[in-house]
Amino acid sequence: MPYVHFRITNEGATKEQKAALIKGATQLLVDVLGKNPATTVVTIEEVDTDNWGIGGETVTVLRQGK
Amino acid sequence: MPYVHFRITNEGATKEQKAALIKGATQLLVDVLGKNPATTVVTIEEVDTDNWGIGGETVTVLRQGK
Amino acid sequence: MPYVHFRITNEGATKEQKAALIKGATQLLVDVLGKNPATTVVTIEEVDTDNWGIGGETVTVLRQGK
Amino acid sequence: MPYVHFRITNEGATKEQKAALIKGATQLLVDVLGKNPATTVVTIEEVDTDNWGIGGETVTVLRQGK
Amino acid sequence: MPYVHFRITNEGATKEQKAALIKGATQLLVDVLGKNPATTVVTIEEVDTDNWGIGGETVTVLRQGK
Amino acid sequence: MPYVHFRITNEGATKEQKAALIKGATQLLVDVLGKNPATTVVTIEEVDTDNWGIGGETVTVLRQGK
Repeated sequence: MPYVHFRITNEGATKEQKAALIKGATQLLVDVLGKNPATTVVTIEEVDTDNWGIGGETVTVLRQGK
Repeated sequence: MPYVHFRITNEGATKEQKAALIKGATQLLVDVLGKNPATTVVTIEEVDTDNWGIGGETVTVLRQGK
Repeated sequence: MPYVHFRITNEGATKEQKAALIKGATQLLVDVLGKNPATTVVTIEEVDTDNWGIGGETVTVLRQGK
Repeated sequence: MPYVHFRITNEGATKEQKAALIKGATQLLVDVLGKNPATTVVTIEEVDTDNWGIGGETVTVLRQGK
Repeated sequence: MPYVHFRITNEGATKEQKAALIKGATQLLVDVLGKNPATTVVTIEEVDTDNWGIGGETVTVLRQGK
Repeated sequence: MPYVHFRITNEGATKEQKAALIKGATQLLVDVLGKNPATTVVTIEEVDTDNWGIGGETVTVLRQGK
């Protein structure tokens, strides 16, 4: 009965991609730890690039620098 | 000074229902652990059904299957 | 299929008290939002008083000041 | 490689203020623990005042009482 | 630069199994969303079975009922 | 009434360093957003290096490679 929480930037992940993350994380817990998929919960939080920082800079700024 | 975080699917919980969750969780911590309600913090995160999975499927898909 | 996470200070909550938090939070979600208890997950994290602060002070220091 | 997550009420924090939180938290981890800023991740979650409670009341209600 | 947090019960996951979860979740984000693995962070929290509930019961109790 | 959660590796942060993180994060929220420190809550979670990964490798392995 594991629980997995993803935080990703909200840069257009599709419904299908999010379904693939959920399926993949659930399967990973089956494969690695033998967990029961029926009680495995996965949630995805999409975070604005203004609200995500790495190296002290927001992703918004980092994307512009590219 | 406990902290409680709820994650629920965003399927129309009303302002009143969310206030009831906050009041109820705060009271639960008073009743069970004798915690001071004044410093008890509760937050509620409403998650899109595309972003919530159980059993490897999104809630969006599970709701359609019903 | 909601998910609830409690953070409390690790000051001796018993097994029975933790079971009561889990039962109470699950029931709260049934009562307020009509959620299915079978897929309601609750976790409790017990945090050292050195690792919890309010008002800029650790709980360790606040407890001594009492 | 620390990780910091802020939850604040969504009451109009600007892009600049959020960048300042990210910069400040990253610097704090350098100053206090000597952490490498390049792998320090900070995220900010803005929570509706209906979804945040303290003392058993929502912030929405508390703001009205002021 | 995604972030993944696993919560699993502390029932003896080995160092190797935890490394496999980290590797697998990182690869999943590469495969599904094309994320850069170098800035993908994964953390695993192991939770006592007394501190985890599903269906209103602790995992400790559920394991005994088996 | 903001809430801040730090995750750091458990590599010997002292009581004083953790108190400094709590004080610093609380002050940051005062300085940047004018938040009331009295209701600012900060928690610190110390994570085993086997349970933290970046770039698909555990910190345990990364530290050995240094």
